Amino acid sequence: MSHVLALCGGVGGAKLAFGLSRLLGPDELTIAVNTADDFVHLGLHIAPDLDTVVYTLADLADRERGWGLAGETWGFMSALSRLGGEDWFNMGDHDLATHVERTRRLAAGESLSEATAALAGALGVLHRVTPMSDDPVRTRLATDRGDLSFQHYFVRERCAPRVAAIRFEGTPGARMSPGLAGALARDDLAAIVFCPSNPYLSVDPILAVDGVRAALSGCPVPKVAVSPIVGGQAIKGPAAKLMAELGAPDGNAGVAAHYAGLIDGLVLDRSDAADTKAVEAVGMRARLAPSVMRSDVDRIELARATLAFAEELRRG
Amino acid sequence: MSHVLALCGGVGGAKLAFGLSRLLGPDELTIAVNTADDFVHLGLHIAPDLDTVVYTLADLADRERGWGLAGETWGFMSALSRLGGEDWFNMGDHDLATHVERTRRLAAGESLSEATAALAGALGVLHRVTPMSDDPVRTRLATDRGDLSFQHYFVRERCAPRVAAIRFEGTPGARMSPGLAGALARDDLAAIVFCPSNPYLSVDPILAVDGVRAALSGCPVPKVAVSPIVGGQAIKGPAAKLMAELGAPDGNAGVAAHYAGLIDGLVLDRSDAADTKAVEAVGMRARLAPSVMRSDVDRIELARATLAFAEELRRG
Repeated sequence: MSHVLALCGGVGGAKLAFGLSRLLGPDELTIAVNTADDFVHLGLHIAPDLDTVVYTLADLADRERGWGLAGETWGFMSALSRLGGEDWFNMGDHDLATHVERTRRLAAGESLSEATAALAGALGVLHRVTPMSDDPVRTRLATDRGDLSFQHYFVRERCAPRVAAIRFEGTPGARMSPGLAGALARDDLAAIVFCPSNPYLSVDPILAVDGVRAALSGCPVPKVAVSPIVGGQAIKGPAAKLMAELGAPDGNAGVAAHYAGLIDGLVLDRSDAADTKAVEAVGMRARLAPSVMRSDVDRIELARATLAFAEELRRG
Repeated sequence: MSHVLALCGGVGGAKLAFGLSRLLGPDELTIAVNTADDFVHLGLHIAPDLDTVVYTLADLADRERGWGLAGETWGFMSALSRLGGEDWFNMGDHDLATHVERTRRLAAGESLSEATAALAGALGVLHRVTPMSDDPVRTRLATDRGDLSFQHYFVRERCAPRVAAIRFEGTPGARMSPGLAGALARDDLAAIVFCPSNPYLSVDPILAVDGVRAALSGCPVPKVAVSPIVGGQAIKGPAAKLMAELGAPDGNAGVAAHYAGLIDGLVLDRSDAADTKAVEAVGMRARLAPSVMRSDVDRIELARATLAFAEELRRG
């Protein structure tokens, strides 16, 4: 038995995490999730990426909308609008139970790790989903419309503001969660997978947690990322727009440059064969695979290709 | 223009308040509502009687279930149960928006009076609905199953425990809300109506607020109660059982004894003509009227009879 650590943001990352969870047993996989998008809204602790990963692994996620729960209802939001409440952040009635129960558990003294384990367990998720940290880390974006929290940028302003810089409040100082630290310390750790999540907004916060970057550098196992960019565009979210605004190279070359020195290989979509050379120029191997995940089979096949790539890199 | 102050608990009282609101203009009626049933649950400030009165006045209340909103959905509660959350207190998805928005407003520094006015206004309620107090008052019941909070007794334990004594935590010390104090101080106050709510659990907490009992005694206007007991039984809720456990006289005689010295007249259901003598024996007038409110017409007619009774008492 060997172990895989996946670093993961929301939707795209969760799909690969789903694929990994179908190939690896519950003790063979740890999914460490970005929590820098968490925020307190209407008194509730909301953890969008944790919930997306848990809902996806439980096969309860809405596949068409791309977030939240399948079969969701919206009575709460419509009533809140009628009351003149703050309704820019959508929460379904079922999803709301997760936020309320998490908030109650945190108020009762549980750590975010403990609350996450309880919620995931109640939904039948057997694999370990762990926040990157139990300490609060919050993404702040310096934009042409002022300094914004992540959800204000991402949801309220729909990623329209031009981003000049990103920082993660609470770092340095935030410690790894026991789940993440434990996975990194395992004797049988065999690979680290960077899921196809936004490198700047979803993976960087994980790397910003105290000790993570050093642990990755010192860790003698293959580190493989799956690019979230296909055909020069992010499959979902603002990655390409953001990279342009921050002056990064275009497309997969930009992703490779961002992870240069940190990872050993990058998985690109088959349609991006032309990017191979630019990726390998920064000192990593490239691997082509179908990386647009529309079905469960797609998810599992991409997970299989990613694990096989890591195994090849391990053998050298 | 003259003014009527109604003292009110939940369901039964709210029905008469609805009737009064159809006969009196927005500046002719203040409805002061019991808040001793309020509690904090899952981090939310829940005010059952305030919500019942506001929903009823807005004609949004569910008439069959007897509480909550018509057309309610239950996604939140089913999801909370799935998560293993505390699901003994039912909250509909739409109702939940009220609790979340109230909690947010209180956390932002609004008083319960201000939050109630905002919520009622958003739902189109023009008449003033005011909590009895902005200070926390909480009903506690000494029972054969221990000391219970109101909602634990009423909802979780379904009124099954035998009650030995009732106290209102926070009294003395709780001050009248500005709305209640303002109504009592009006020059044009013409009548005070005790709605058909549980005398022990819904009206007594209002009377326990600092200065209310003295203000009523010193107030030279007719004070009329509508009995919540018909045919020896409460139309809804545990009034009759509770009165027996507390050793009060049966039925309307018990209600009259409870309010003796405080009110000038008691409205009884037509079917309880036999109770007239016992009621008048404790020093108040009795008036027969159809007091079971099944329709809007019933509500308005009972309100009309009650106001006419008060007017007769005023003329002496």
